[in-house]
Amino acid sequence: MDKQKNAIPRVIIIGGGFGGVQLAKKLKNAPVEVLLLDKHNYHTFQPLLYQVATGAIEGDSIGFPIRRIFSRQKNFTFHLAEVQKIDTANNTVETNVGSYAYDYLVIATGANTNYFGNKELERNTMPMKNVAEALNVRSLILQNLEKALVTTDKTERDALLTFVIVGGGPTGVELAGAISELREFILCKDYPGLCNADMKVYLVEGKAELLAAMSPQASLKAKKFLTDMDITIYNSVHVESYNGFLLKIDDGTTINTRNVFWAAGVRGEVPTGMPEEAVVKGGRLQTDEINRVKGFDNVFAIGDVAAVVTGQNPAGFPGVAQVALQQGKHLAKNISNLIKGQPTTPFTYTDLGTMATIGRNKAVADLHKLRFQGFFAWLLWMFVHLMSLAGFSNKAIVFFNWAVNYLTRNSDNRLIIHYFKTDTMELDPVAR
Amino acid sequence: MDKQKNAIPRVIIIGGGFGGVQLAKKLKNAPVEVLLLDKHNYHTFQPLLYQVATGAIEGDSIGFPIRRIFSRQKNFTFHLAEVQKIDTANNTVETNVGSYAYDYLVIATGANTNYFGNKELERNTMPMKNVAEALNVRSLILQNLEKALVTTDKTERDALLTFVIVGGGPTGVELAGAISELREFILCKDYPGLCNADMKVYLVEGKAELLAAMSPQASLKAKKFLTDMDITIYNSVHVESYNGFLLKIDDGTTINTRNVFWAAGVRGEVPTGMPEEAVVKGGRLQTDEINRVKGFDNVFAIGDVAAVVTGQNPAGFPGVAQVALQQGKHLAKNISNLIKGQPTTPFTYTDLGTMATIGRNKAVADLHKLRFQGFFAWLLWMFVHLMSLAGFSNKAIVFFNWAVNYLTRNSDNRLIIHYFKTDTMELDPVAR
Repeated sequence: MDKQKNAIPRVIIIGGGFGGVQLAKKLKNAPVEVLLLDKHNYHTFQPLLYQVATGAIEGDSIGFPIRRIFSRQKNFTFHLAEVQKIDTANNTVETNVGSYAYDYLVIATGANTNYFGNKELERNTMPMKNVAEALNVRSLILQNLEKALVTTDKTERDALLTFVIVGGGPTGVELAGAISELREFILCKDYPGLCNADMKVYLVEGKAELLAAMSPQASLKAKKFLTDMDITIYNSVHVESYNGFLLKIDDGTTINTRNVFWAAGVRGEVPTGMPEEAVVKGGRLQTDEINRVKGFDNVFAIGDVAAVVTGQNPAGFPGVAQVALQQGKHLAKNISNLIKGQPTTPFTYTDLGTMATIGRNKAVADLHKLRFQGFFAWLLWMFVHLMSLAGFSNKAIVFFNWAVNYLTRNSDNRLIIHYFKTDTMELDPVAR
Repeated sequence: MDKQKNAIPRVIIIGGGFGGVQLAKKLKNAPVEVLLLDKHNYHTFQPLLYQVATGAIEGDSIGFPIRRIFSRQKNFTFHLAEVQKIDTANNTVETNVGSYAYDYLVIATGANTNYFGNKELERNTMPMKNVAEALNVRSLILQNLEKALVTTDKTERDALLTFVIVGGGPTGVELAGAISELREFILCKDYPGLCNADMKVYLVEGKAELLAAMSPQASLKAKKFLTDMDITIYNSVHVESYNGFLLKIDDGTTINTRNVFWAAGVRGEVPTGMPEEAVVKGGRLQTDEINRVKGFDNVFAIGDVAAVVTGQNPAGFPGVAQVALQQGKHLAKNISNLIKGQPTTPFTYTDLGTMATIGRNKAVADLHKLRFQGFFAWLLWMFVHLMSLAGFSNKAIVFFNWAVNYLTRNSDNRLIIHYFKTDTMELDPVAR
């Protein structure tokens, strides 16, 4: 639609996650025009998706309209658009609502669930990478409890009451903990008919330990917390297949279940048009130390979709919000420098630490040398996540929910509403 | 599934709206077993749907899990079930999860959108009778603003920026007012590119006045409020057709629009199996003065699906929450009386008054002889609605949202997420 170049250089950012939003903010005073494209009109605070999935907080509280974030930034434009292709030869992004010319392109598309090519697992397990998926997880859990109450088939009832989380990273650990707390605090209150039923929670992880990116202390303590909460943990095994009824693990174990949640891996969302040779392990775009994609002068990648590959850093940085935020901030400076003809500076990652929460009063935290677990880690986890949420209202509402949940061991958000899973934007006149 | 009768009489209530929930609560100490069936697991506070549709409050805040309401009521059971048929000959309700025998049956299924048989209008306009539909309205409004920003076709842009509300009852008036406020307070902030665009809001009503059930003062003042907010009102006309692009009105007017919201009528949701001869005007079940359905001894109807037809009351009571609440409460007593062999008492409706809100500081209220409009009506409207919401958390969160909206003239809830419109419960193993 606009093939014309402007006098002021245009930076197109694809993706309104942690990296894209941070970059756009930090370009506020740069001599550029910023155009942010996203297929959703909101930024998602992914670290709290598991709480939406288990009914602790509302879905709306972890989404924040992108336009709201930037309503006072003069050099910023947002378009709701699904990117179809990047035409690097012509410096153009093609989308479902038109084509856009760029001077600088930043790919900040993040990562999506990785099924490692297994279509059966993709079809039959539930992912949890956005608000709609988290709300679908919530509906599935609640719906299967409802079905368990009315079914007369014992095998089916057991399967409906068996919850398997695949993946022992932060998402899997947090989801397993939250489902176990549903069992502990909610089952007897809301489903008296299931109070004495044997609801089972399994956590299946390929590595020898949980939270493998954290310290051995954190991994061990997390495992102890989860085991104490009556979660059965399988380490060093892989899921072979799941047909919607029977989950097979490669050590010969089979689990009869209707609820399988997939948190076992992510893969970079590389847009069509980017060359194969720029894509490395995990579907990420290989970049140099200023986040410039291999083979390009004016195309960059930040966050989960980027792998900053250098001699000291052959595997790229971990796919966490802090990396995206820091890369967004740093790239804003480097783009300004490039425009002014000044030298760029290499990105360095400052690891502020890692945390994961397992349940009420239970979390693990690694802050450099300082490693601690339990109540204080849990308090710190809550404080850090609350402060990171976009917007005063979201902070206040999540805080209120947490306070009520803590005091009453209950919440009001267990509604079964089905959401479209599709990532494609509905473009029919009437969106039903 | 359970064809057996119990020693204690079983009351089956179909529908967890205002009437059904109130009845179940009031049967707490009655010598009965209460089974509530609903296709949703939550009670919906319908009067605030329009605020969800316009992003003022979260969808979750006006839904409240039915199990939560009754977690301490010993004689109460809830089953998530879609009623397929009522077999009055065998005193049985057939559902998608099994059959249930009843001693007393209460139909409290409410009303759904009435298109008066017009399939084209049903397909192309948006209803707003439940949380999912309200969230779809929200998505459509926001999505069409996004599209208006990027389209290059002037006619299409005008159509995307034209909003037509059909129906001048409380729902239509409140929705029109809220969309007009989106235009006034949000358009320039969030969509600078549309700030000078000519966004239009129309309200189309078949009767000669708006809010026809209220006093002439209220009707006139509501019309003045809406006109002052730059809403074009058509009275005494009917929508003939709408093909998704062009709306035709029977006075010859045509409107080029992509947004048509249907609030022009409701129809009782009579379950299959109820005899034709019991159904009267508006698709409601004709009942006697103790809400017993015509032709039955042990089948009752309350709320929007019921028309209490007596000599003085040939058209039934209005379809408002107060009627349902009062009928629920009254029927609880009469069912207890019937069981104990005591005489029943006829239902009488105490009209506590009617209110409708048009916008910031603007509402109309009829409380018997006391009729007032403006700021105090608006304060009273807020107070009454807040107090009527189920649950402390919902009250607190809606109050917080209102306070923030009032102070900032903005909200954080404008997320585009698509919802399944289907009312049928998804019963596949994986609910996507």
